Amino acid sequence: MFTLIYITASSVDESASIGRKLVEERLAACVNIIPSIRSIYHWEGSMEEDEESALIVKTSHELTPQIIKRVRELHSYDNPCIISIPITGGSRDYLEWLDDEVKRP
Amino acid sequence: MFTLIYITASSVDESASIGRKLVEERLAACVNIIPSIRSIYHWEGSMEEDEESALIVKTSHELTPQIIKRVRELHSYDNPCIISIPITGGSRDYLEWLDDEVKRP
Amino acid sequence: MFTLIYITASSVDESASIGRKLVEERLAACVNIIPSIRSIYHWEGSMEEDEESALIVKTSHELTPQIIKRVRELHSYDNPCIISIPITGGSRDYLEWLDDEVKRP
Repeated sequence: MFTLIYITASSVDESASIGRKLVEERLAACVNIIPSIRSIYHWEGSMEEDEESALIVKTSHELTPQIIKRVRELHSYDNPCIISIPITGGSRDYLEWLDDEVKRP
Repeated sequence: MFTLIYITASSVDESASIGRKLVEERLAACVNIIPSIRSIYHWEGSMEEDEESALIVKTSHELTPQIIKRVRELHSYDNPCIISIPITGGSRDYLEWLDDEVKRP
Repeated sequence: MFTLIYITASSVDESASIGRKLVEERLAACVNIIPSIRSIYHWEGSMEEDEESALIVKTSHELTPQIIKRVRELHSYDNPCIISIPITGGSRDYLEWLDDEVKRP
């Protein structure tokens, strides 16, 4: 089973440094970074708008807990957005490559 | 249960104005906007290519019907792309924050 | 049942040419292209970082095998990222439009 983990970060540099660690440590096979997004949210009662960046992390479902732990260690926020979305199919060759590139949980 | 709602809009400004309403009205905890996407689709028999913008809305699954209704009221299109994707896991602290920030359905 | 297929490509031009074919051939109702993403991955033992582009393809679930086959034919990579994510809800009018715009499998 595979999963796509969506993370937001304060900047493209922070996205890249988190992404490199996840790939380097074989927690993710591949990370795609959307350099610039605009975020709107409530924070301590008032509406906030910020420039952020997003990571799309492709990995095996079993590694999700380790990724959440590692990202929280690396991230500049106390409570970063880390959510997982199921990958329910796709190119078999690609999914086999993905499986080969990540460590066993 | 949580969900990610993906919406496209005519411009980053329209994305921002819809996003602000959803957060302000506690229908969404957080909205991320991808300022610029290119869209290819059929419209009344011919192929069209347009510049659009996309919203990634993070909310509780139970609020999906209200969000669809509200976005259709706010949107400049008659039939905007509003699709929901399941969030099947993630950082517990983040999901708790998300749950606290949205209204009860 | 509907699905969102996420594909990465070498450039926005390659994304556009693949996207046009999928829509033209009624394999997809609509394709959104994120022009520029940064990708980090392992390739033959070393860490790579590249500029890429991403496609978000909205279609019926039954067409997934045909899309995978067609994208692999069109793509410049030997083993492109083609993964599918379930669409579990959304605007009924939009999903009806989506269903009308794609061919029967």
